Amino acid sequence: MNPEYTATALAHPNIAFIKYWGNRNDALRLALNDSLSMNLAALHTRTTVRFLLDGSQASDTLVLNGRAIQGDALVRVSGFLNLVRQRAGVDWPAHIISDNNFPTGAGIASSAAAFAALALAASAALGLHLTEKELSILARRGSGSACRSIPAGFVAWHAGVEDGDSYAETIAPPSHWNLVDCVAVIQSAHKPVGSTAGHTLAGTSLLQAARVADAPRRAALCRQAILDRDFEALAVVTELDSNLMHAVMQTSTPPLLYWEPQSVEIMKSVMRWRQEGLPVCYTLDAGPNVHVLTLSDSVDEVEQRLRAVDGVAEVLVSAPGGAARLEPSPKDLEMKGFNQ
Amino acid sequence: MNPEYTATALAHPNIAFIKYWGNRNDALRLALNDSLSMNLAALHTRTTVRFLLDGSQASDTLVLNGRAIQGDALVRVSGFLNLVRQRAGVDWPAHIISDNNFPTGAGIASSAAAFAALALAASAALGLHLTEKELSILARRGSGSACRSIPAGFVAWHAGVEDGDSYAETIAPPSHWNLVDCVAVIQSAHKPVGSTAGHTLAGTSLLQAARVADAPRRAALCRQAILDRDFEALAVVTELDSNLMHAVMQTSTPPLLYWEPQSVEIMKSVMRWRQEGLPVCYTLDAGPNVHVLTLSDSVDEVEQRLRAVDGVAEVLVSAPGGAARLEPSPKDLEMKGFNQ
Repeated sequence: MNPEYTATALAHPNIAFIKYWGNRNDALRLALNDSLSMNLAALHTRTTVRFLLDGSQASDTLVLNGRAIQGDALVRVSGFLNLVRQRAGVDWPAHIISDNNFPTGAGIASSAAAFAALALAASAALGLHLTEKELSILARRGSGSACRSIPAGFVAWHAGVEDGDSYAETIAPPSHWNLVDCVAVIQSAHKPVGSTAGHTLAGTSLLQAARVADAPRRAALCRQAILDRDFEALAVVTELDSNLMHAVMQTSTPPLLYWEPQSVEIMKSVMRWRQEGLPVCYTLDAGPNVHVLTLSDSVDEVEQRLRAVDGVAEVLVSAPGGAARLEPSPKDLEMKGFNQ
Repeated sequence: MNPEYTATALAHPNIAFIKYWGNRNDALRLALNDSLSMNLAALHTRTTVRFLLDGSQASDTLVLNGRAIQGDALVRVSGFLNLVRQRAGVDWPAHIISDNNFPTGAGIASSAAAFAALALAASAALGLHLTEKELSILARRGSGSACRSIPAGFVAWHAGVEDGDSYAETIAPPSHWNLVDCVAVIQSAHKPVGSTAGHTLAGTSLLQAARVADAPRRAALCRQAILDRDFEALAVVTELDSNLMHAVMQTSTPPLLYWEPQSVEIMKSVMRWRQEGLPVCYTLDAGPNVHVLTLSDSVDEVEQRLRAVDGVAEVLVSAPGGAARLEPSPKDLEMKGFNQ
């Protein structure tokens, strides 16, 4: 038991090779298809949760990257904490401090790392001892892809059919393969549609059923490519899967065109570079950034080429990352946010 | 009968609102789904065919935009002329002179206008009196979408199931609606995959079946939008249909990514402009150019905005065009190419 009802956890975002897009149940975030991903070692969210028994605040408070957050984001976090509180049989409000080590607004999907870290920190703060599977299921309720940021390395999310069987687990540890994700961060004036809203549109595309029906085949190919460390096989299925998801997005009602001109420039460059012999492939989440996968030997070359593309603001380089994990809580917790 | 076995015909390219992509029979170019298009008045191909009985040449010769053409393009034209010769019961070689009034290499799909003009000129030169339906069927054998450049104005291609019932006909004359196509010509270093080759890949996309299955619904919506002169309805179904075709292209094996960065820039701009109240929508064929449809009152505004986009080399503005038609043959035919 945690005498101060406080815990700090760190979790990495993940990049999916086989994508999650669309739910069989939006409220429970039960995915329609299995997905496969890799955690990103260089990027993380660190979250401290303290439950307050002293009556100093009546409801949850949230400080994200140093800024007090209200509104929809806080409502979503409070709703998630209710799941943890119910499980622990308490109703104490919490103060949450969360920081990303990557630039805010860079279009790095942060909800996966955020809800993985929050699930672990909140459950630990309340003295719940959840298994990895239970944590993955819990994190999924906050953000679907957060379930994949609980286990280490290369991860498969079994879509399942109900709350208890929809979770992620490691298929290979981070050390298994020297795969590297170079995220080309695109300067974009536009705020894309958030993925929670986007998921609810997936069913309006007449292409979604075919994408989902074929997903087991792609997931099997991708899993085998990872296990075999077969870059070319991974490249082909990963690019196809990304294109399939964006095809669904672009043909939903309303259509979602997450690609920016620079995204297409990079996608086409990556295809050309691979034809020329460089081990590279692309995948894009619900935003304009292009995740360019390569092997560690080629990282310098890939990073240099990406930085030379007009409109690329930054390149973030990540090896396969570990599991979500508890950390010592900061001693300066008061100073960092409790008195704001 | 034509005493000199010579005829000249003019035909317009067309832009499809409901696209043709993929055949049930590649050799006969029998489309998998109905399509709908508009001829482009400002653009045309003018083709003169002369069949030679004097033994001056042993096989067909072709001069395209002033250049003698050999190789695959000539083989394709000769194969097409064989269909006309068989029908007329002759085996005479032909000399063909064909000119486009739009820039070569600008990525304006020219095969539709080319084979429509060739079908009409060749059949007239041999004294065949074909009905519009017969001409449309014949032109289709040269290039699928050429069947839509035979009739006037707004045109529907009935996919049919065999050679004799796969043809296009007018659903509304050019004067029916003041719709205008502003083609934003994109500077591109890349030569895209030709559409004949592309069609054969359509079946490798797992999305093609869903695109085709829903095509009758989209064609009905589009036809009604044209008949009702309902721009907003046309815009929604036209953009969806373009995105569906490109989704299939982008997920075929190998993938075909015809969009260039500037294409995406314009697509996103057009979506924004329409939200702001301007009557505009986009559609793209098998290339990077963006066809921006609007109404005649807004042409100046649309043209000006498109010219302001970086990477737009030219904007070609077209009202609805007429049918393929015979013209007097040029008196200077000898000078223009017969002595090369």
